[in-house]
Amino acid sequence: MTRSVRVAAGQLGPIQRDDSREQVVQRLVDLLRQASDAGCDLIVYPELALTTFFPRWFVDDITEADHWYERSMPNDATQPLFDEARRLGVGFCLGYALLEDGAGGVHRWNVQTLVERDGSIVGTFKKVHIPGHEEHEPDRPFQHAERYYFEPSPDGFGVWDAFGGRVGMMICNDRRWPESYREMGLQGVEMILCGYNTPLHYAPDPSQDPLQSFHNSLVMQSGAYQNGTFVVGVAKGGVEEGVPSLCDSRIIAPSGEILAAAQTEGDELIVADCDLDWCQQYTGTLFDFDRYRRPEVYTRLTTQRGVKRMSAVK
Amino acid sequence: MTRSVRVAAGQLGPIQRDDSREQVVQRLVDLLRQASDAGCDLIVYPELALTTFFPRWFVDDITEADHWYERSMPNDATQPLFDEARRLGVGFCLGYALLEDGAGGVHRWNVQTLVERDGSIVGTFKKVHIPGHEEHEPDRPFQHAERYYFEPSPDGFGVWDAFGGRVGMMICNDRRWPESYREMGLQGVEMILCGYNTPLHYAPDPSQDPLQSFHNSLVMQSGAYQNGTFVVGVAKGGVEEGVPSLCDSRIIAPSGEILAAAQTEGDELIVADCDLDWCQQYTGTLFDFDRYRRPEVYTRLTTQRGVKRMSAVK
Repeated sequence: MTRSVRVAAGQLGPIQRDDSREQVVQRLVDLLRQASDAGCDLIVYPELALTTFFPRWFVDDITEADHWYERSMPNDATQPLFDEARRLGVGFCLGYALLEDGAGGVHRWNVQTLVERDGSIVGTFKKVHIPGHEEHEPDRPFQHAERYYFEPSPDGFGVWDAFGGRVGMMICNDRRWPESYREMGLQGVEMILCGYNTPLHYAPDPSQDPLQSFHNSLVMQSGAYQNGTFVVGVAKGGVEEGVPSLCDSRIIAPSGEILAAAQTEGDELIVADCDLDWCQQYTGTLFDFDRYRRPEVYTRLTTQRGVKRMSAVK
Repeated sequence: MTRSVRVAAGQLGPIQRDDSREQVVQRLVDLLRQASDAGCDLIVYPELALTTFFPRWFVDDITEADHWYERSMPNDATQPLFDEARRLGVGFCLGYALLEDGAGGVHRWNVQTLVERDGSIVGTFKKVHIPGHEEHEPDRPFQHAERYYFEPSPDGFGVWDAFGGRVGMMICNDRRWPESYREMGLQGVEMILCGYNTPLHYAPDPSQDPLQSFHNSLVMQSGAYQNGTFVVGVAKGGVEEGVPSLCDSRIIAPSGEILAAAQTEGDELIVADCDLDWCQQYTGTLFDFDRYRRPEVYTRLTTQRGVKRMSAVK
């Protein structure tokens, strides 16, 4: 018996500032229906899939940006997506900004919520590695002030029993960090769902601009291979509010091979059949962690955050 | 001022069982002279560069294999390499099997020794991730009994001040593990030297055979990029004692791009100029570890060796 999941990456073209959530949810529902027609079990949407990538603008009073955040999930704007998913029996993973204002104070998170085929929420993941900057940097052509708008997750990476397998989540910059995949690999992950918004211009080092597509594939392919897991990487891209962004959505096998790749800069569905038992061909051999890992000599990974330069002994 | 190191990968074609160390050292010296003619500061040789890859055979009495190991470095067979390196002012990195028999008992290691341009030994690295198997597995077409012939390093990964920069080492299977690169990245590594012997046939999962070249580049390119370091990967390949082995030596930039790639299945020199300040374009921006890493949520990396399957909370 194969444990096969037919998964769709639901890539989004740009969402402009003035697009309403209702307009965007209609696009999400259109993609969901395409996924259903294609026989998919699950569709994965990008990071911040309900709004434009608002961290490109700075506001001195952060509460002026509160309208970009959801207060609950589902809510009035997204209920049609939940309803249609349950009706069609297609699960989904949705990225959005979440504002919590309760007994614990005010928290702003960059999250993804995973929803099963019956419409029930499996789990919500908070982004761990927040990139960019905290302060206004007016010399940039556009801001990347995620560290102003979002707190990093205090919880780290989880893996959930869902869709007949072990499913994990990460968001955008998390995919560049091998620790993200490994934390999930150590929980037996078989499929990692990852949305992203990646501007093609990286102000701190523009020499990286022409390498964005290469780096995007490189980190997801190596993370997949080194942990024997599928990775579903989904972009919101195209030219959003004048900022060109990467569109290269990818579905990647435990072998590291690309199974499906987006061809356009707009809303686009790509699909792959993922036999979860393929994972075992890596996690049961070369990457049998219990047999081959050496945590006793990995002490720097968790005892230091940054670089310490000391010369090794002879 | 740029800190530029001109580095050579000194790929070796096969070493057959009956080839003497003196014959092999002459091949190493030939490559060293080519490196000197090319103006190189450093040449990197493969794993187990003095002998055939003897873990492909099993012997019931391990001491019958002791002749494959060096007892000291330099020794009579390798002294000509050390002498020529000092005379030409070219450093080298050499992989070999080392047998220690002293007050601490008998130890068998798979090591690389790094030698500066003046012939002095910078350091010796012991392989951390020993692949393959411990017992005889007669159903395999050939053995990969490294776990019988070598102890894993108790020391982990070091980084040395050498060649004007921060130089680390790893051996063969170490390159498949992101922890290897990260342990060195956290010590400010700028260039990682890695020799390998990689049979094209992987008995536990032959579906990986046609992917060997892809996987080899994938892990070194992602490790380079994610840690902002050069990686020099050097093969002993070709058909050795009937076993076809990977030959794809590579010099890789901190961007993850391949700067030089071997074209043959024999002894071959490839060269690249490595501006060590390139590393800072990654370690000072996107991969500024002190700013962006999250070790407080990486606890599984060091508290568990193998997989633990528990379902995350909602």
